[in-house]
Amino acid sequence: MSGQNLLREAAGLLDAVRTRRPRVHCLMNGVVQKLVADGLSAIGAVPSMTGSPDEIGHFAGKADALLVNLGTLDEARRQVIALGVDSVAEEGKPWVLDPAHCDYSPPRARYAIDLMECGPVAVRGNGAEMTLLDVPETVIAVETGLKDTIAGAGRRVTVRNGHALSPVVTGTGCLSGALLAAFAAVADEPFVSAVAATLVAGVAAEKAGAVARGPGSFEPALLDALFALTPNDIETSGRLGDG
Amino acid sequence: MSGQNLLREAAGLLDAVRTRRPRVHCLMNGVVQKLVADGLSAIGAVPSMTGSPDEIGHFAGKADALLVNLGTLDEARRQVIALGVDSVAEEGKPWVLDPAHCDYSPPRARYAIDLMECGPVAVRGNGAEMTLLDVPETVIAVETGLKDTIAGAGRRVTVRNGHALSPVVTGTGCLSGALLAAFAAVADEPFVSAVAATLVAGVAAEKAGAVARGPGSFEPALLDALFALTPNDIETSGRLGDG
Amino acid sequence: MSGQNLLREAAGLLDAVRTRRPRVHCLMNGVVQKLVADGLSAIGAVPSMTGSPDEIGHFAGKADALLVNLGTLDEARRQVIALGVDSVAEEGKPWVLDPAHCDYSPPRARYAIDLMECGPVAVRGNGAEMTLLDVPETVIAVETGLKDTIAGAGRRVTVRNGHALSPVVTGTGCLSGALLAAFAAVADEPFVSAVAATLVAGVAAEKAGAVARGPGSFEPALLDALFALTPNDIETSGRLGDG
Repeated sequence: MSGQNLLREAAGLLDAVRTRRPRVHCLMNGVVQKLVADGLSAIGAVPSMTGSPDEIGHFAGKADALLVNLGTLDEARRQVIALGVDSVAEEGKPWVLDPAHCDYSPPRARYAIDLMECGPVAVRGNGAEMTLLDVPETVIAVETGLKDTIAGAGRRVTVRNGHALSPVVTGTGCLSGALLAAFAAVADEPFVSAVAATLVAGVAAEKAGAVARGPGSFEPALLDALFALTPNDIETSGRLGDG
Repeated sequence: MSGQNLLREAAGLLDAVRTRRPRVHCLMNGVVQKLVADGLSAIGAVPSMTGSPDEIGHFAGKADALLVNLGTLDEARRQVIALGVDSVAEEGKPWVLDPAHCDYSPPRARYAIDLMECGPVAVRGNGAEMTLLDVPETVIAVETGLKDTIAGAGRRVTVRNGHALSPVVTGTGCLSGALLAAFAAVADEPFVSAVAATLVAGVAAEKAGAVARGPGSFEPALLDALFALTPNDIETSGRLGDG
Repeated sequence: MSGQNLLREAAGLLDAVRTRRPRVHCLMNGVVQKLVADGLSAIGAVPSMTGSPDEIGHFAGKADALLVNLGTLDEARRQVIALGVDSVAEEGKPWVLDPAHCDYSPPRARYAIDLMECGPVAVRGNGAEMTLLDVPETVIAVETGLKDTIAGAGRRVTVRNGHALSPVVTGTGCLSGALLAAFAAVADEPFVSAVAATLVAGVAAEKAGAVARGPGSFEPALLDALFALTPNDIETSGRLGDG
């Protein structure tokens, strides 16, 4: 597939998210739940966040995809993650792993490696996090940074969108992971959905950066940009490379 | 009471909140605690949020009203809710129930139904949530949606204010519940206080929507609007109907 | 040291934070973790937030300073605070105590008094909170309010910067505490680092207040101002007094 065709296909998935409004359940750190929920809503998905063991089955059962984010991990979250992953796996729904900060903590890294065995559709992290994981070719690996690299299913591409203010705002990476889950819910090909989600995050960040006066105004501008983003924006502003 | 009189009475309660600065303790989901605290502060109330069993008595004892919100409910919150409700009920202070997302989870719906027995002054939810509860006529039922309906104490009215961006921002509904608690703290008539809180939320949302460029800029604009809102804004922009 | 010299020395520490990018681990209430993380990032520090007992050693070990904030305190946080304080104390790294809302709850006040025995480099609170603590002269006491007073190590000074919208936004005080930790990490003299952090918070608040339309727009403007703040801003806008 040429880069232009891949861009067009990715752009089409933005329409699919807006039309089908996938429900994304997030088992994640409490610090940035609000930003992730707002980002999912802005793009047209429907977020939920509960982490209670006696409710996760009901929420995961209604969800179209699951995000598992390891930020501020604790024992209670480990328990509910096990239940949530089982629940979506049983129904063949996709789930995404974000091993946030696993490079800070050996037990978290070990846990992330164990979770890889449970078959996420995609895993997203920065270079320091991803290097600790041995991602099999069947899982889409999304490494975000100055450029983003998406690899898996025998394919590999880079996305060169984004903005320097993104890493100054806590949670923009976690939001990228949540977008991966939302797009995985509406796509047949996990590789294409990962490209689409990464393009959406990057192009929206560029639009936000163009109007922001700093990291404080960048965050609302990012949500505004996600809300206003069109497939045409992806086709005209997306920058794919060969990796 | 004519609609114009009700508007005027509701507008007067905004002055009462700003003057008396009621303390509102919130037992609620962690996702939107910051937005709810900021919204309460913007309107002139004083929020607190602790959910620790050994501290709830001290905080509820100092509070003028309590908000009980069931978003991301877990066992620990159930325990502290029991203590908090007992504490305010004993002193005859009002408390408000927000059965957030109880339509997603049967155990949460059952718990909400049980809590109704403990005598909230008002309950707020969307249509899917409210339909699961059997609200007695002594409790003010506030159903929020495209229009909001306030019913109870033998009266019924609709509020047709608000903005389409509100539901795109996580926590605006929870904030409406918190405003119900703040206004209940300063009013003699629970029905009028519920009308006032609902008008305040709706008129502020309209003002925010007039300047927002999307859901990201809508949220700070909503807080700015709540902060600047005057009784005259309520009288001139509030739209009451017969239900 | 004259006021002008102290201003210049404080301004220099802003450069030190931006250059050395200290890691600040925060054991704090969940309500405002996002704002505190964003504020630390905006000033050039690197925040982390995990509160899990099995991970705190790894995170505190990588941190250059620790913030201990007692907002929404519970038993789990008490346990991790003990571990975190031991970890940084062992390595001679500074930690800061913020006894948030300890005036609401006697057990929290007692706990804050006990923590004072563990040797924080500084303690920050409002007047109601600070009056409950008996801060020894070896600890820098920062009392924030209409004016801020910094006292300890035989010195005393007031900072008369800040803005009336700050207290309307939940978490600006907690952010001031986190800035104290960031500046303590790069300074030899705790008194000077506390003055620098307090000036930074106050001058940034003034800049934010100059462009904000209310508390909602104040918050992103505060982060923008922290991000853009220069040592020259501190020297020209900082207002020190004799206490």
